[in-house]
Amino acid sequence: MEISAQVICIGNEIMLGHIANTNAQFVSGKLSCIGIKTSKHLDIPDDPNVIISSIRKSLAESEIVILSGGLGPTVDDLTLECIAKALNKKLIFNKKIAGQIKAHFKMRKIKMPANNMRQALVPEGGIPIENNIGTAPGLIIPVNGKVLMAFPGVPFELYPMLEKTALPYLKKKFPLGQIIKSRVIKITGLSESRVDEMIEDILRLTGKIQMGIYPHPEEIQVKITVTEKNEKSADRIISKIEKQIKSRLKDHIFGYDNEKFEEIIGRMLQKSKKTLAIAESCTGGLLANRITDAPGSSAYFKLGLVTYSNESKHRLLGIPMETIKKYGAVSKETASLMAKNVRILACSDYGIGISGITGPGGRTKTKPIGMVYIALSAKSKAICKEFRFSGTRNLIKYKSTQAALNMLKQANN
Amino acid sequence: MEISAQVICIGNEIMLGHIANTNAQFVSGKLSCIGIKTSKHLDIPDDPNVIISSIRKSLAESEIVILSGGLGPTVDDLTLECIAKALNKKLIFNKKIAGQIKAHFKMRKIKMPANNMRQALVPEGGIPIENNIGTAPGLIIPVNGKVLMAFPGVPFELYPMLEKTALPYLKKKFPLGQIIKSRVIKITGLSESRVDEMIEDILRLTGKIQMGIYPHPEEIQVKITVTEKNEKSADRIISKIEKQIKSRLKDHIFGYDNEKFEEIIGRMLQKSKKTLAIAESCTGGLLANRITDAPGSSAYFKLGLVTYSNESKHRLLGIPMETIKKYGAVSKETASLMAKNVRILACSDYGIGISGITGPGGRTKTKPIGMVYIALSAKSKAICKEFRFSGTRNLIKYKSTQAALNMLKQANN
Repeated sequence: MEISAQVICIGNEIMLGHIANTNAQFVSGKLSCIGIKTSKHLDIPDDPNVIISSIRKSLAESEIVILSGGLGPTVDDLTLECIAKALNKKLIFNKKIAGQIKAHFKMRKIKMPANNMRQALVPEGGIPIENNIGTAPGLIIPVNGKVLMAFPGVPFELYPMLEKTALPYLKKKFPLGQIIKSRVIKITGLSESRVDEMIEDILRLTGKIQMGIYPHPEEIQVKITVTEKNEKSADRIISKIEKQIKSRLKDHIFGYDNEKFEEIIGRMLQKSKKTLAIAESCTGGLLANRITDAPGSSAYFKLGLVTYSNESKHRLLGIPMETIKKYGAVSKETASLMAKNVRILACSDYGIGISGITGPGGRTKTKPIGMVYIALSAKSKAICKEFRFSGTRNLIKYKSTQAALNMLKQANN
Repeated sequence: MEISAQVICIGNEIMLGHIANTNAQFVSGKLSCIGIKTSKHLDIPDDPNVIISSIRKSLAESEIVILSGGLGPTVDDLTLECIAKALNKKLIFNKKIAGQIKAHFKMRKIKMPANNMRQALVPEGGIPIENNIGTAPGLIIPVNGKVLMAFPGVPFELYPMLEKTALPYLKKKFPLGQIIKSRVIKITGLSESRVDEMIEDILRLTGKIQMGIYPHPEEIQVKITVTEKNEKSADRIISKIEKQIKSRLKDHIFGYDNEKFEEIIGRMLQKSKKTLAIAESCTGGLLANRITDAPGSSAYFKLGLVTYSNESKHRLLGIPMETIKKYGAVSKETASLMAKNVRILACSDYGIGISGITGPGGRTKTKPIGMVYIALSAKSKAICKEFRFSGTRNLIKYKSTQAALNMLKQANN
């Protein structure tokens, strides 16, 4: 049996382009994990006639219809009334929900506007979904073997409600005997077309396997999606494909799924009991910031210096002014000394030095925008690489930190 | 005359939740600027029957239909054929486009796959839109007084094509005699409910004026949207409302529209010829990173230190170990000395010191997660404030930098 879902997002702010609709992506992603395909996303304004006819049409076309938005307390919030009208059901006042809403305001010591009691109305036959963050409850309502669900439009309210209540309900109501599982492989240091070339045959796999390549400015993601009867067989297929990709892209793979590079590096440093210090010029603190985004980074991160001026490179890092004059601040020599001297200054195991030209100013004839030197220093090792990154100022900064993290990862292997 | 538009985005990757559809927001935002309302966003899979019927239905309902996605060179890319079928038109090979595609590959020194010639097909009566970034041209095709447009799905290809070609075309074809203009006011240091309370009456304005309040974790945005017959009268209304809001929210307003706080601060420092040095602990380099995101920051940013350990606070900034022991690293005393000593070390006009607890570890009974001290030091001025921020580690870091920038802005006034 093929079960399909539709996602309807309601709100004038979406139609005006004031906000991006990220709920549809989230809902479809979660549904696809339990084997349910989404056949349509629909965004519509706060117009009762449009809402009612859209609900009816989607219910006629699909087994599952998920609404988001329009559950707030104001007169613009029409979703509950429209659901009741679309399904010819009465709205019934729910005492339990009313109590929860009152408690929500009491706890925050705010006087409850009378309007908020509108949120305690539930269409006949509906099952409310508790909202632990805001005041608007969600709704599950069975309709002739199909199901309609409604969630608040605020993403961080919708996310936990969908995961905790709606997904288990749908899994039970529509046992599909199949699941969809995905794995994302994160790649750095290669262009999209180069990755494409290296794993072209794997990317062409079809059938129960769906391959995708998603270029982001700072990394390439390859996604393996498998439809199988259970987790175990899905995992087997995914790890087989993953192995093939790994054998070709090797060191360029830095992580999987939602892993962040700085967290991978953090775990690596903790495991090997090594410490790190950083001297940044063109990245301006971005590398230190990423490193300290990882919880527990104080265990291995000793010191970060943003020596943006030549003067500070000289005074804080003891880099001779002659070196800077002779080779330039953007040079192998300067970056290498930055890495070495910050390591010695902080008494750390590793030192990283970054110096480059991010633009729009600062370039010379021989040193174009995007030229970046990254140096890594350890007691028994010293590496410095020259890179040529493309893109905006922010992108060049980000790509530089990716490359630095990758050098650190490879050195620690 | 009311003109309405629909946006149809095509792609299995959208239906699977692999990517968020940000094109619909972009298109609607741009259309609303020229007075055209979007009545529907529709996301559909790469299924020719669904694409054809969706095109026909949307053209029946609205004057303008804008497609994105499915213009690539592969067999999955069906948009051109579907447009031709939906409108009963032939596809005609366009020599000029074929030449441009060939040139694109020649320039990048890549052999052109034969498939790419499919992108040179144009439905009869269609006007191709040049794509300066990728190989897929866009399309404008008039249909009985209405218009259908198609764009590649890659956002950074769609954006310039829509702005340069499609918007001028639509403005000319549908002269509405009215425009929609918006202004975003960016607010920091107040909660959404507090802003709501302070400008409640203004937020309730209706008619030709539409007010919105958009809470982001790091800032509150209030948006004024006005529908008027021309720019001048729209500007007059907007600046009147803006003045009212400014008189109430005062210093909490830090910027407008797409302005970034770090760029506002940068312009401010350049104008007043002042320089800045920063010593960060809990923000781990984020403030230095934001400051150096602004082009030209080397003119006023002298030095950033990420003194993550007590040792580095002592050794680099000369903060007595007794001070740290007595008051703690997270204290008014330590933050104030960080600000003062980094200012002296860098010979700058301003020094900023930040020390706090971002979690998940590090809290004590008296020092909860989110407690942050921010100090500002100038020759004749020294301020230190205690903050209690809520949210994740990253959010606490970000909110701390917002507060620091705001302190700097107020001190420089």
